[in-house]
Amino acid sequence: MCELFAMSSRLPTSVGLSLERLARHGGAEGPHKDGWGIALYEGRDAFLFREPAAASDSELERFIQRHAPPSSLVLAHIRMATHGDISLRNTQPFMRELGGRTHVFAHNGDLDGMDKQQAFYTRRFRPVGDTDSEVAFCCLLERLARLWDGPCERLPALSARLEAVAASAAELRPFGPANLLYSDGDALFVHAHRRTQGDGEIRPPGLHVLERTCHEPHGGLQGEGVRLTTVDQALTLVASLPLTSEPWRPLDEGEVLAIRDGHIVDRHLPRDVGRPQES
Amino acid sequence: MCELFAMSSRLPTSVGLSLERLARHGGAEGPHKDGWGIALYEGRDAFLFREPAAASDSELERFIQRHAPPSSLVLAHIRMATHGDISLRNTQPFMRELGGRTHVFAHNGDLDGMDKQQAFYTRRFRPVGDTDSEVAFCCLLERLARLWDGPCERLPALSARLEAVAASAAELRPFGPANLLYSDGDALFVHAHRRTQGDGEIRPPGLHVLERTCHEPHGGLQGEGVRLTTVDQALTLVASLPLTSEPWRPLDEGEVLAIRDGHIVDRHLPRDVGRPQES
Repeated sequence: MCELFAMSSRLPTSVGLSLERLARHGGAEGPHKDGWGIALYEGRDAFLFREPAAASDSELERFIQRHAPPSSLVLAHIRMATHGDISLRNTQPFMRELGGRTHVFAHNGDLDGMDKQQAFYTRRFRPVGDTDSEVAFCCLLERLARLWDGPCERLPALSARLEAVAASAAELRPFGPANLLYSDGDALFVHAHRRTQGDGEIRPPGLHVLERTCHEPHGGLQGEGVRLTTVDQALTLVASLPLTSEPWRPLDEGEVLAIRDGHIVDRHLPRDVGRPQES
Repeated sequence: MCELFAMSSRLPTSVGLSLERLARHGGAEGPHKDGWGIALYEGRDAFLFREPAAASDSELERFIQRHAPPSSLVLAHIRMATHGDISLRNTQPFMRELGGRTHVFAHNGDLDGMDKQQAFYTRRFRPVGDTDSEVAFCCLLERLARLWDGPCERLPALSARLEAVAASAAELRPFGPANLLYSDGDALFVHAHRRTQGDGEIRPPGLHVLERTCHEPHGGLQGEGVRLTTVDQALTLVASLPLTSEPWRPLDEGEVLAIRDGHIVDRHLPRDVGRPQES
């Protein structure tokens, strides 16, 4: 089963993420042998490291654990292949340029039938690989392009971007589990749906979220001397399953979050998905 | 001064490239402190490693030297910043998807005025960074999109792609030195122009090429046993300056090459650029 992880923070931080431990935490018996990837934003662009091989065997994964550049916006994916062969082009996260920014996307779930439907993407955005997930990304980009193709360089309104992500997610849900991580470098968008749980049944939650603020010692040069100061750090983490014993919140089915600078800043709940507590 | 390097081969090979040594070979006194990057194709997609920092200080560069995945199509760039600040988004090679393939581009030279002219790119392909080089890539993609946007998945004819690269290069030359490496994952295209030579004068050649065929011992599993066989390898290398004592050929001003599977397969010479040997 694929695993998703994302982090948004107020200040750049070193993730030091063990993707293999993340995968095992997710309840997998063996190694997630089919690939892994991580995107770390620096401004409007992002470092992207991907490998179509098990993270547990990977020199690159160990290198990233030690040397990943500090970032305030990170998206990661660990793959168990269901659609498409084991190759780089089928390894997430996926990346595209739109509106002069690097956009990054990762998906967990099976969108059955989507990978075979060319109608879902256009000439402008085409999948390089064979996965349902990349077709889903192309669909999302197609919708977002209407916002980003304006003549000026200004960011489209956050609410409009959130609505576009929510509308695209609503299109995907009928095909199967559609847990999504997506970012345009400004905000992190998250869509939670359903996931194969420990008992093998497919149901919500598809993702969990944790908001955390903390004071961190911070070494910085000030004037001519060196001073150790305390800074306010804000972090929001998103993962397939809780990674710590803190009270992670399971996301509702169809819930979409916009996260910026470590805080959840906007939220969308669909009308078309009945949630158990409301039925 | 920026340095370019590219390799096309019949069989995947490990480049084991020292980008710092490559830069010093190019005649630089100090380290090329402003960034470096390398793209290694795997099928229609490519691994991309970039860093907005000196290759000489880079843990990632040392990692790539040891562990770069074998590839038969490699493009690399080492940066001395002239346009745009030192940041990831200004670090080459640049990458875009077009027609369901990953396209990679790197440029050496100064295209004065180009980075400020929004007219050179469209809403579809926008630069993420501030360099003249990325604007040049967007221009090239705009021209290539006419070939790649067809309804079918077939590769556009190599001759048509070569003509598009040549036409785009001819547009760039009036702005200044425009030595280009570009690939769509099928062929490597190279455009040579002028370059600041050892005496400080700007003149051709902008690039050098070396074609080489050789027999290499090759360990491969055959049937149930292990056999050491000899394979015919073909390699074509392109670099700003010759890297070995072999007879590298200096490219003519405005010459465009198409290289595939280690061989130069097509060539374009412009009418609008007078070459010294012809004048």
